[in-house]
Amino acid sequence: MKGLVYNGPRNVSVKEVPDAKIERPTDVLVKITSTNICGSDLHMYEGRTGVETGKVLGHENLGQVVEVGKAVDRIKRGDWVCMPFNISCGFCKNCEQGYTGSCLITNPGKAGAAYGYAEMGPYNGGQAEYLRVPYGDFNCLKLPDDAQEKETDYVMLADIFPTGWHATELAGVQPGDSVVIYGAGPVGLMAAYSAIIKGASKTMVIDRHPDRLRLAEQIGAIPIDDSKGSAADHVMEITAGEGADKGCECVGYQAHDPQGHERPNMTMNELVRTVRPTGGIGVVGVFVPQDPKAPDELSKRGGMAFDWGLFWSKAQRIGTGQAHVKAYNRQLRNLIHTGRAKPSFIVSHKLPLREAPQAYQHFDAREDGWTKVVLRPAA
Amino acid sequence: MKGLVYNGPRNVSVKEVPDAKIERPTDVLVKITSTNICGSDLHMYEGRTGVETGKVLGHENLGQVVEVGKAVDRIKRGDWVCMPFNISCGFCKNCEQGYTGSCLITNPGKAGAAYGYAEMGPYNGGQAEYLRVPYGDFNCLKLPDDAQEKETDYVMLADIFPTGWHATELAGVQPGDSVVIYGAGPVGLMAAYSAIIKGASKTMVIDRHPDRLRLAEQIGAIPIDDSKGSAADHVMEITAGEGADKGCECVGYQAHDPQGHERPNMTMNELVRTVRPTGGIGVVGVFVPQDPKAPDELSKRGGMAFDWGLFWSKAQRIGTGQAHVKAYNRQLRNLIHTGRAKPSFIVSHKLPLREAPQAYQHFDAREDGWTKVVLRPAA
Amino acid sequence: MKGLVYNGPRNVSVKEVPDAKIERPTDVLVKITSTNICGSDLHMYEGRTGVETGKVLGHENLGQVVEVGKAVDRIKRGDWVCMPFNISCGFCKNCEQGYTGSCLITNPGKAGAAYGYAEMGPYNGGQAEYLRVPYGDFNCLKLPDDAQEKETDYVMLADIFPTGWHATELAGVQPGDSVVIYGAGPVGLMAAYSAIIKGASKTMVIDRHPDRLRLAEQIGAIPIDDSKGSAADHVMEITAGEGADKGCECVGYQAHDPQGHERPNMTMNELVRTVRPTGGIGVVGVFVPQDPKAPDELSKRGGMAFDWGLFWSKAQRIGTGQAHVKAYNRQLRNLIHTGRAKPSFIVSHKLPLREAPQAYQHFDAREDGWTKVVLRPAA
Amino acid sequence: MKGLVYNGPRNVSVKEVPDAKIERPTDVLVKITSTNICGSDLHMYEGRTGVETGKVLGHENLGQVVEVGKAVDRIKRGDWVCMPFNISCGFCKNCEQGYTGSCLITNPGKAGAAYGYAEMGPYNGGQAEYLRVPYGDFNCLKLPDDAQEKETDYVMLADIFPTGWHATELAGVQPGDSVVIYGAGPVGLMAAYSAIIKGASKTMVIDRHPDRLRLAEQIGAIPIDDSKGSAADHVMEITAGEGADKGCECVGYQAHDPQGHERPNMTMNELVRTVRPTGGIGVVGVFVPQDPKAPDELSKRGGMAFDWGLFWSKAQRIGTGQAHVKAYNRQLRNLIHTGRAKPSFIVSHKLPLREAPQAYQHFDAREDGWTKVVLRPAA
Repeated sequence: MKGLVYNGPRNVSVKEVPDAKIERPTDVLVKITSTNICGSDLHMYEGRTGVETGKVLGHENLGQVVEVGKAVDRIKRGDWVCMPFNISCGFCKNCEQGYTGSCLITNPGKAGAAYGYAEMGPYNGGQAEYLRVPYGDFNCLKLPDDAQEKETDYVMLADIFPTGWHATELAGVQPGDSVVIYGAGPVGLMAAYSAIIKGASKTMVIDRHPDRLRLAEQIGAIPIDDSKGSAADHVMEITAGEGADKGCECVGYQAHDPQGHERPNMTMNELVRTVRPTGGIGVVGVFVPQDPKAPDELSKRGGMAFDWGLFWSKAQRIGTGQAHVKAYNRQLRNLIHTGRAKPSFIVSHKLPLREAPQAYQHFDAREDGWTKVVLRPAA
Repeated sequence: MKGLVYNGPRNVSVKEVPDAKIERPTDVLVKITSTNICGSDLHMYEGRTGVETGKVLGHENLGQVVEVGKAVDRIKRGDWVCMPFNISCGFCKNCEQGYTGSCLITNPGKAGAAYGYAEMGPYNGGQAEYLRVPYGDFNCLKLPDDAQEKETDYVMLADIFPTGWHATELAGVQPGDSVVIYGAGPVGLMAAYSAIIKGASKTMVIDRHPDRLRLAEQIGAIPIDDSKGSAADHVMEITAGEGADKGCECVGYQAHDPQGHERPNMTMNELVRTVRPTGGIGVVGVFVPQDPKAPDELSKRGGMAFDWGLFWSKAQRIGTGQAHVKAYNRQLRNLIHTGRAKPSFIVSHKLPLREAPQAYQHFDAREDGWTKVVLRPAA
Repeated sequence: MKGLVYNGPRNVSVKEVPDAKIERPTDVLVKITSTNICGSDLHMYEGRTGVETGKVLGHENLGQVVEVGKAVDRIKRGDWVCMPFNISCGFCKNCEQGYTGSCLITNPGKAGAAYGYAEMGPYNGGQAEYLRVPYGDFNCLKLPDDAQEKETDYVMLADIFPTGWHATELAGVQPGDSVVIYGAGPVGLMAAYSAIIKGASKTMVIDRHPDRLRLAEQIGAIPIDDSKGSAADHVMEITAGEGADKGCECVGYQAHDPQGHERPNMTMNELVRTVRPTGGIGVVGVFVPQDPKAPDELSKRGGMAFDWGLFWSKAQRIGTGQAHVKAYNRQLRNLIHTGRAKPSFIVSHKLPLREAPQAYQHFDAREDGWTKVVLRPAA
Repeated sequence: MKGLVYNGPRNVSVKEVPDAKIERPTDVLVKITSTNICGSDLHMYEGRTGVETGKVLGHENLGQVVEVGKAVDRIKRGDWVCMPFNISCGFCKNCEQGYTGSCLITNPGKAGAAYGYAEMGPYNGGQAEYLRVPYGDFNCLKLPDDAQEKETDYVMLADIFPTGWHATELAGVQPGDSVVIYGAGPVGLMAAYSAIIKGASKTMVIDRHPDRLRLAEQIGAIPIDDSKGSAADHVMEITAGEGADKGCECVGYQAHDPQGHERPNMTMNELVRTVRPTGGIGVVGVFVPQDPKAPDELSKRGGMAFDWGLFWSKAQRIGTGQAHVKAYNRQLRNLIHTGRAKPSFIVSHKLPLREAPQAYQHFDAREDGWTKVVLRPAA
């Protein structure tokens, strides 16, 4: 089959790779019809991770079931399904508590596995014609009748919609809250969208790319351009000097200031400053324990010069980590199905798999208008 | 009346000060019979805060009501009462949500007020004969018939028992959990005691003072002496390589390593290492936004070199800040009343007020056996 | 001053009554500009309660502060304020836990007080020119600059918006849920509106009055007319045989079937049937411990023939009781202020106080188009 | 193999039955070494259910794994395991939310399956030599090294310890609470034990069997004998007229008054009376939707004359249903392992399987001293 393979820094190509197939009786085999390029794919693309060459990338996958293993009871051939990016067993200590993003079985020795991802197990991704889904009964979300009609919405259930939602859960967003979100990339926009769906009263989104800020405004958020002055001052003004009730970090370890310098602690220290005393902060932007190519010594070993004293004296809370997609994907699927959510507003490009390499290039360059790419391997 | 006054670094004395009295119709006036010296008093004593000279210290207070203002409805003359160290109004946005430690009314411009404390409003403390209690109906916890008999237990409701409890709440301790606690000072021991009352299965306490470790063992915790080898390794061994389910920081910004060097990030980075993926960490040790006498530049401006990448990749959560005492003091009072809790096990000394200066000296030196001092102004 | 007085069953009139005034230093005196007639006023109006004659009715009140007691710190003369229908102290065991609808101080011997209400303390209501507000700092919600412009929205914060919200809280409504609501009176419509604001995926509302069902549809709910066939069957069909995730009871003890017979257990037994296994049910419709004029013996003594076996075997949960308005009114005020909520859609009539008696008559008859009346005493 | 078979009302016998065996690749086969007789077995024994004749009973099972299916990854031959009485899939809507007692897959058309139980699927029980465990990776709780030494403690994890715990969870028991528990049978005693482990300040247990009341007292609860006067009056006195903070129902539909008359609504109406306003009530005693042999018409169709008006006006909450054992069994196992819990205090008899019929007879007669029977099929 064909798959998008990582060859090295800023070098990916579509190649023939061994066919995905049923390997265990609990596996499900899915023909992929939509698979997104994710912002976190760019960490790998840019060579800022230890991902092995030859790996098929792609962890935001949707398609139709073509085969099921002998122990699969719920999922049937022909079902339309969307897979959480996390691969989880369903029966370890973490999965049992709903922490499926930190599964202890599927990536032994670490907590958490994913398709086509650095450090997250030996699994190939879904930017390919077929995908093997381990523990298929647990890891496939069944889609309703309108699966194909709303495919571009449903594919967002694999990662960015639940991840944005997770940011707001970690932050503890409640109806009526004011919320500040750092980053208007796909995840930041989904966090804003989630806050709005949950009934936030004010949702502020900070970024500097005009196309992203336009999308933020379009869904009802307040866009704040941090290249045009202090974003923090702006937030304090909008919240009458109090700070936002809750905050979300949706940028991660490669944060840059408006002048283009990498400053890994910028978003977190701004959040501590712009969130009110007793407020909560959810951090879904990716951070890593080692980052040999980081700009400074502290960052290289995964550290951050964090404004801890202010954080503590404001009695704030922080929750972190990758989304436990299964905690949210049924409910979010229902919102899409009944027309209450339409996360495809984020999509700028739908392309055949063969155009994936160029898409990586444009998306990595944050070219204007390249907000989110959906690849269509079956098209 | 007589009160213990801060004169400057490591200089306190008992002096005549103006009588505490009813100033507002919502005030209550209490004759103090027990008032503790707190570990956080030592930050002031050592000159590591901006506390003004002339201030009466003391925020852990218990006594008998001698007078009530005209608008006081619930509290009566003669009632035995224990006051949370936080002074709160009961009707601001934070108090309404139960965040009485971050009251927006009693210390305008900041969040949170306290008796006799740096940066926490103009209130004198209770290491004195009398104490004025603002918003008395809200801030006095009434004690039952055995108030005098169990006075040394009940006075722990002012701060350290609820503060230790808060650490376990912020960490999210559940029955059956394993818990690691950094610091076996009064607050750390109360955190351990709280975890045990809540049904933790294993409670590990890390310190190096033999008297404190003995008390930890006595209440059923596992004492770990970090001057005898790596405490972190020990925790990992006890938890079969997994890390503790939850962790508590009960040391604060003046943490020292076993060799006596001040290392403000030591406890937090150890907690990130020794708490399991998806685990929670509660931080009640005091940290400050500015610390001009800190050992390094980052700490001087309230920053910390924190192992953020590991923290994030373990999907951990952190809650911080001073305890909201009223969230717990009724329930903890009931546990004392029915004999299920006896926090006075911590007390090493009961002394008359006039001996307070010497007591500060001994306690500040962490002399063996000086675990907790109760002053008795009326004795 | 003038006030609407209860003279006996179906007999109310606007009369001269003693002026409301500051009686305690914690009181606030409010000039009432908007005060609603509530569905629960009709229980009193119809003589189905023990309310004393001569009482001024009215518990949904908004106005401007004209005087404050000497112990009032937060509220100032000139403030625009909306008062929760519950009168609460802020410092009893229930208030401290946020159960301000069950205050133990303001109505001694019972739990919970209200303005102008049967069995809920000696307080006059606000269908009058002025209202005395006890514990004013605690019981007044301050309104922002647009108080007068959006007065008809903000007055809904006194009762029905928080009460509808409370129904969804008691039921445990989460984003993505399907919700079934019995009753499309003002509270039922507010419950539907609340579910929608919180991100419910499907909100079904059962009633038989065309004007109410039209409003339900207008806000995005699915109206179900139970005079046109089995509502329960309809709900099961919409939910693919599963039942709704959550349910709300917004009718109360005077429920009638479509044929007009009073059947107090109808709504609850239908809810048990139409809510899914493990689902939650919130009950804010009023029920009473004694009801001498009830149609059967069991109901007379406050009992109900409830389908307990089915309820238990479905592992459902029920939460009940009057709303704790202060738990929600700040957040809901923010939603109104930022334009995210506009509960005034419910209002059918704005009338001067002198027309109150006729308004009671029309509203009690459930005349088409009389969905909600706002009285304007100052107009 | 040998198994205890239901032949009809009050008629069970140990017979040769077809061997339990691996039927699906996800199955695990367990050699049973401990299997309890449960109070809910008596509903079947007495002929008060529709259980089919020929069924092997027994849903509280522990033993050693002798074989695993090809799709089983976590559980290995030789593992000591305890099985929740619920049989659940791990991947349906209810299981995903932790409601494993209401699994939608294992008993199609209903919610929830169990071993050897009326209306809960076609599964044989474990009062036999071997047991087939469906979805073995999900349904087997692995036991530590001390499995055999503490076998009589660990077998309580199958049902009554988690069920008692569930009662306190449904009631919302918090540290410091006062709790009233109706019924001191095995589940009631486990509810009391759970409340105490969680830090309740007062735990009152109501029953009339002296052996049970003695056990209640032995674990630190306050025993109340309802054959010696009004239990409700006693509870109100102990709680200073306020009522208990929380309550638990651990009796179920065959409740009798002290005079021996069956009164299905007795315990619930007493709970409403003796629990304080805003309090929570957890109901784990079994109730059924149809009960043809009930003493009155309402009960026959699963109804109850419930004091709804008082319940509502006290703003109480009720949670019901069978325990979701997997929500608690890991944590409770840890408490047993570290010696913090020892639920075997309940056990009065350990008997070989062949004595099961007589044991049913004695236990059904509630003979003094027959509090809990553990059968040992392998002995």
